[in-house]
Amino acid sequence: MNLKMLIYILGKVLLIEGVLMLLPVVCGLYYAESQVVVYVLMAALYIVAGFLISLKKPKNMTIFIKDGCVATALSWIQLSICGCLPFILTKEIPSFTDAMFETVSGFTTTGASILSNVEGLSHTSILWRSLTHWIGGMGVLVFLLAVVPMAGGSNMNLMRAESPGPSVGKIVPKVRTTAKLLYYIYLVITVLEMVILAVTGMPIFDSICTGFGTAGTGGFGIKNDSFASYAPIHQWIVAVFMLLFGVNFNFYYYLTTRQKSKAFKISEVKCYWIIVAVSTGIICTSIYSIYGGLEESLRHSLFQVATVITTTGFATTDFDLWPTIAKYILVVLMFVGACAGSTGGGIKVSRFQIMFKTIKREIQSYIHPRTVKTITIDGKAVGSDVEHSVALYFFIYLVIFVVSMFIVAIEGHDLVTVFTSVAATLNNIGPGLSLVGPTCNYGFFSNLSKWVMIFDMLAGRLELLPIIVFLTPTTYRGILKKSVRS
Amino acid sequence: MNLKMLIYILGKVLLIEGVLMLLPVVCGLYYAESQVVVYVLMAALYIVAGFLISLKKPKNMTIFIKDGCVATALSWIQLSICGCLPFILTKEIPSFTDAMFETVSGFTTTGASILSNVEGLSHTSILWRSLTHWIGGMGVLVFLLAVVPMAGGSNMNLMRAESPGPSVGKIVPKVRTTAKLLYYIYLVITVLEMVILAVTGMPIFDSICTGFGTAGTGGFGIKNDSFASYAPIHQWIVAVFMLLFGVNFNFYYYLTTRQKSKAFKISEVKCYWIIVAVSTGIICTSIYSIYGGLEESLRHSLFQVATVITTTGFATTDFDLWPTIAKYILVVLMFVGACAGSTGGGIKVSRFQIMFKTIKREIQSYIHPRTVKTITIDGKAVGSDVEHSVALYFFIYLVIFVVSMFIVAIEGHDLVTVFTSVAATLNNIGPGLSLVGPTCNYGFFSNLSKWVMIFDMLAGRLELLPIIVFLTPTTYRGILKKSVRS
Repeated sequence: MNLKMLIYILGKVLLIEGVLMLLPVVCGLYYAESQVVVYVLMAALYIVAGFLISLKKPKNMTIFIKDGCVATALSWIQLSICGCLPFILTKEIPSFTDAMFETVSGFTTTGASILSNVEGLSHTSILWRSLTHWIGGMGVLVFLLAVVPMAGGSNMNLMRAESPGPSVGKIVPKVRTTAKLLYYIYLVITVLEMVILAVTGMPIFDSICTGFGTAGTGGFGIKNDSFASYAPIHQWIVAVFMLLFGVNFNFYYYLTTRQKSKAFKISEVKCYWIIVAVSTGIICTSIYSIYGGLEESLRHSLFQVATVITTTGFATTDFDLWPTIAKYILVVLMFVGACAGSTGGGIKVSRFQIMFKTIKREIQSYIHPRTVKTITIDGKAVGSDVEHSVALYFFIYLVIFVVSMFIVAIEGHDLVTVFTSVAATLNNIGPGLSLVGPTCNYGFFSNLSKWVMIFDMLAGRLELLPIIVFLTPTTYRGILKKSVRS
Repeated sequence: MNLKMLIYILGKVLLIEGVLMLLPVVCGLYYAESQVVVYVLMAALYIVAGFLISLKKPKNMTIFIKDGCVATALSWIQLSICGCLPFILTKEIPSFTDAMFETVSGFTTTGASILSNVEGLSHTSILWRSLTHWIGGMGVLVFLLAVVPMAGGSNMNLMRAESPGPSVGKIVPKVRTTAKLLYYIYLVITVLEMVILAVTGMPIFDSICTGFGTAGTGGFGIKNDSFASYAPIHQWIVAVFMLLFGVNFNFYYYLTTRQKSKAFKISEVKCYWIIVAVSTGIICTSIYSIYGGLEESLRHSLFQVATVITTTGFATTDFDLWPTIAKYILVVLMFVGACAGSTGGGIKVSRFQIMFKTIKREIQSYIHPRTVKTITIDGKAVGSDVEHSVALYFFIYLVIFVVSMFIVAIEGHDLVTVFTSVAATLNNIGPGLSLVGPTCNYGFFSNLSKWVMIFDMLAGRLELLPIIVFLTPTTYRGILKKSVRS
């Protein structure tokens, strides 16, 4: 393991976090809030410490895939701990467990909150809380790759560990250019949403926070009723933007480089829109009698489908009161998740595509043993390593899910609460059903359950494997020998 | 496809069903019930028709694996339709859907009932209902193989399609001898249980029905309160026998042939007992305060664990009222299921063993890419085809589960009811939670939902693939050409 490189990366991540913390500082100064002092101090500390730690570039910048996993896991843990300190020091969230839960929920773009009164926070802290979504959405290491030059295959090993999806594709041959392009597209759409929201009458502060929350598919509301009290026009706008951020970013890259035909051929994106349309249609029909008319039913259906499939987690209405079929579809969408290569969470549409194609291929080869078929997606063959990794993903997912539910069930809340709270954190969504429904929060859980969910949120955001590799003892076999040698 | 062979098999299955129906006839004559007339007529009809259809042995007795799937699926459908006719004709269950539900539930050893008053049935029908469990438990085709000589590989293709578990092993080289041995062990343990129950004071009729229900891990109770009103001693006996029928039958074969060391080395069986012990321990602790003392808590815990993990479905108490952690463990056990090569349902312990070993192997090869490992169970290498089939099983399972829940959810019952009713039928258990809890029945569902569950019960019992192959159009590609040629 390349320890020097690991420390270098952690230093850079700390530096980036410090710099990004200057944004809430600006906000705090504008509103002249006392909490800004804490943010100034923490930002300064992180910038100086991060700068000093990463001052010396290691000679050997090569990192293998397992080092990439460890670096990613540690970066995210460091990010969360450093990110939660301001909440504790401003005494706005005094408990360490609660502050960690809130921060991890932010960075992993889950959006599950332990706060019963969000509106009681300072503007500074609300902005930082929403900003964590934006940082976590595209990923801090992808950001790092965009700004720091690194050696050949190493950066790919970092990107692969942090980015969502069964197989991480580089849009262009160079990883650094890919990372830059991703952040460029990300920034442009985020700003576009903020501008549209502000122009249509949303207060500027709300527009900025909502923009961050939508872009990262995070879902922290800045009002106690999440999104219910905003005007219908804003609900429509946010619904559309949530869906846009759930699309594979390759789509936008192809669009901007005028490769329209390529863009519209991505089968995952097509599949994603079909799922959205069908789900919205069925839910709209089932809730039509509850609401006044077509516009309202359609708006609530689309918004809730968008918020759940992209795993954002805003809510315009209490869908826990909807008919079973509507709730069931939302629960299924919780697991489906958005496209690979988007900022959304969940299992991802493309994993299900690969699963369905595997089923079809295997049944055919069972019936006609002599036909051998490879699975293709968008004309490209899916390697058996990707197939394996998808099966592995489902298996690990299942194990983490069952064990998490077991620990949370000890507390004795009803099964729907236990099931959906684990589903909502592991899939990085936010609200669940019953006691963790859209109008509730996660504050009532015991500390044990909260730590289980903190683990689930991190495991879900990093797509299981990096966290598992990080926790596997054999990863560190011979670590001393190698670090001495290097 | 070998159509002549298919018809021959169906004829034999009909003949067997007719012969087995003579048992309720004897019972009906003993109790002098009017319903016996129907059973006499149907038994005679099935025996004569079955005999005539299977009179001419086809020259070419070879069947391929896909033919085996089709034959198995058709045999089970025919078995169910012929089996439900007496219920309709005696007017004890007048609706066709309900009678099919009850019969499929019987043959698939599910034990879910649509009857609210079981005690209102005639002895004749109760015995037939319990007997379906015993027939379905070991499988009608395994019975066929035990009594009818067949060509080389063909019988294996039939056995593989009907028997549970990821890889069907022959105990001895000859399939026919294996089938005979299995039925011999099955019969001996069943009779042993009946005798012990009768000797300890249970009425003979109850002992016989309970024996059939336990042996097939079926779970049809013959009292309205399932097993709650029987004496504690009988509850203990049945709990132990349920667990014994959940053990891989290879264990008993090794025991009877004095290969003790081999028997006690079967890792699936060890794993099974550990799961039972740990689950019982946790549940007993969690329900201790509800019941009077240790004996009662332990008895109810062990009985419920046994009934759920072996997917039998008897109940001594309403576990829907238990604490969440106890209910959650039971829900997990619903999916785990018993050992492969037993009469129990569910996903099977060995599939989870293979899953865990796959996870371990893949993570290790991710961390140390140069190590190549094969998965072994009991010292034998698990082929990549078995690994594939396990992953395929989980994938298909997931799809059937999600689609079934969708259709059942339309009716609008609560999510726990929808979830556990599908889980309880697909895993062939019987009772679920909430509206399908141990004190309830399935009568209130719509016909649509009932047919979905009938499908799920069959798919679950035949372990998905035969039913899927049976329903795949390409199975019948060129069927006319080939049947003309043969």
